[in-house]
Amino acid sequence: MVERIAIALDAMGGDNAPDVVLAGANMALKRHTDLDFLLFGDEARIGPRLRRFRKLARVAEVRHTKERVTPEDKPSLIMRSGRRTSMRLAIDAVKAGTAEGVVSAGNTGALMAMSVLVLRTLEGIDRPAIASFFPNARAESVMLDLGANLQCDARNLVEFAVMGEVFARLVLGVRRPTIGLLNVGHEDTKGNEVLREAARQLRLSFLAEQFEGFVEGDDIPAGTVDLVVTGGFAGNVALKTIEGTAKLINGFLREAFHNSIAARIGYLFAKRSLDKLRVRTDPRRYNGAMFLGLNGVVVKSHGSADALGFATAIDVAVDMARKNICGHIGEEIAQIAGQPAGEDRSNGLRAAAS
Amino acid sequence: MVERIAIALDAMGGDNAPDVVLAGANMALKRHTDLDFLLFGDEARIGPRLRRFRKLARVAEVRHTKERVTPEDKPSLIMRSGRRTSMRLAIDAVKAGTAEGVVSAGNTGALMAMSVLVLRTLEGIDRPAIASFFPNARAESVMLDLGANLQCDARNLVEFAVMGEVFARLVLGVRRPTIGLLNVGHEDTKGNEVLREAARQLRLSFLAEQFEGFVEGDDIPAGTVDLVVTGGFAGNVALKTIEGTAKLINGFLREAFHNSIAARIGYLFAKRSLDKLRVRTDPRRYNGAMFLGLNGVVVKSHGSADALGFATAIDVAVDMARKNICGHIGEEIAQIAGQPAGEDRSNGLRAAAS
Repeated sequence: MVERIAIALDAMGGDNAPDVVLAGANMALKRHTDLDFLLFGDEARIGPRLRRFRKLARVAEVRHTKERVTPEDKPSLIMRSGRRTSMRLAIDAVKAGTAEGVVSAGNTGALMAMSVLVLRTLEGIDRPAIASFFPNARAESVMLDLGANLQCDARNLVEFAVMGEVFARLVLGVRRPTIGLLNVGHEDTKGNEVLREAARQLRLSFLAEQFEGFVEGDDIPAGTVDLVVTGGFAGNVALKTIEGTAKLINGFLREAFHNSIAARIGYLFAKRSLDKLRVRTDPRRYNGAMFLGLNGVVVKSHGSADALGFATAIDVAVDMARKNICGHIGEEIAQIAGQPAGEDRSNGLRAAAS
Repeated sequence: MVERIAIALDAMGGDNAPDVVLAGANMALKRHTDLDFLLFGDEARIGPRLRRFRKLARVAEVRHTKERVTPEDKPSLIMRSGRRTSMRLAIDAVKAGTAEGVVSAGNTGALMAMSVLVLRTLEGIDRPAIASFFPNARAESVMLDLGANLQCDARNLVEFAVMGEVFARLVLGVRRPTIGLLNVGHEDTKGNEVLREAARQLRLSFLAEQFEGFVEGDDIPAGTVDLVVTGGFAGNVALKTIEGTAKLINGFLREAFHNSIAARIGYLFAKRSLDKLRVRTDPRRYNGAMFLGLNGVVVKSHGSADALGFATAIDVAVDMARKNICGHIGEEIAQIAGQPAGEDRSNGLRAAAS
């Protein structure tokens, strides 16, 4: 028998909260019948909507608060002043053990800042990272960091590799994930000293056999490796560039299929096949950015996600909780804790994501 | 009457040299009848092939050398030891004024190192940059730097903006190019101090009205701005990610159109329209990376480019020479030379591209 699992939802986060949050939770419930939800937010807005989802209402409990984090809130400020916000209370529930994970579609910076404050980073982890996964030519790629750490030292990158590897293995089910460090060329001499030092440390680590060296931007969609490790600046740029390019090409295609009567007819014939492709690459099936390296499961949904997208983010949180991702990352990181961190560590410059 | 213009070609650079170089030059000659070529390389290999292109043979002159730069050559070494290589001699021809531009499909690092050594950077330019252009949702985007400078200070980024703006205006014909600085968010507080300082300097410069602030990865394909300015690491990652994603989606589509008989029929109906799209987004039409900031026109072709791609790279070099890009960049950079360079300049960390 599978144990019931409780997920805390920031019911007020995202462009279309709380509607999308409730509809998403309801959808997730169809996949996982053993879920309970704690819904943090304005009862006056959540209550009437919740009653429309009869099954969900039976397993969801509203925890009322009027306050919420807005997209404009500065993380550094709201993390102190926002103790009564729906986002913060949802994170507190994970800390208190009443929920096994939290999902929010709200302000990313605030979610990270509050999560670090409340849940703390795992022992042996210097900085948590934001990870995501998306389709590639072979299967799925995991990439991190996607913007939590704009400047990283070699040790940070090694920790990202450890965290991402655990995620790819336990949540995506890749038996032995291969790992690449994002760089401007494949050769060992490419890039800067931080990257070369990170590569050296990975080659000395227990991940050595899975580490395939440097990869380039086009290796991400090609799926050359299962896991792409990078600093937050390049990771953020790469992820958004992939999303933007996919959108651009979709637009071009839509245009092409409307160009002529023949093209429209062609579209009708190919529609079923193209629809399958659309489902396979549907960004809603890949919604959810995982915060890795914390003492607790935190998943960020796209602010503009619809119910299907939000349900995916809940799915990921459930999987992470069930597979005890945090516990496994803690164990793996202990394996590299004894290794020399490399000289560059103390000199490593950092810029806080604001 | 248009004056004749001579272009120096590294006939031995690239995967399929010298065949592609000759076929590409021949193709370019059909578009610009007023071209002369200096072909640097092994006469024994170039001569017999050249005779096959009768028109080209009339305007091309072979300058024999046995030596060539290989893809494995280290830029820092070959730049000293490679004085008799076809690449170096082709650059020398620009320096000597016997050619008005050079095109090579060889080793990028070596081409940049030798070009800087021989041609020198323009006065007022700290570091040359690699730029490229490609289709976006509206028209065409220019982006730089694409990998010549892995770590940039604010002043470098401002110089890139000046150089890219001149290119977009004079070569692409954008009347008043808009400019964006690549970052992880649009808000002024995003990113690191270098980016914020560069934004500040651009707002004080003569480009202030064209500067639209920070842009994100998805703004590149969206064409939010005409010119995307970035450090070489993120620029390289973004460009290759765009190329890789386009390739991935093409692969998915090819698969989708072969999925079923209906899809194959659909493809036949839509073929003409899809072919138009293919032509519009054909990477060969965007081949050629421009080295900006040098005392001379240098264009790098993709190593794997075919004749059409190589011809495009020649086209770009001809346009750059004819529009006197270097002269205009020199004039524009003088306009910001008087501005305070910002404190971060002396502290700016750099990593040489290797």
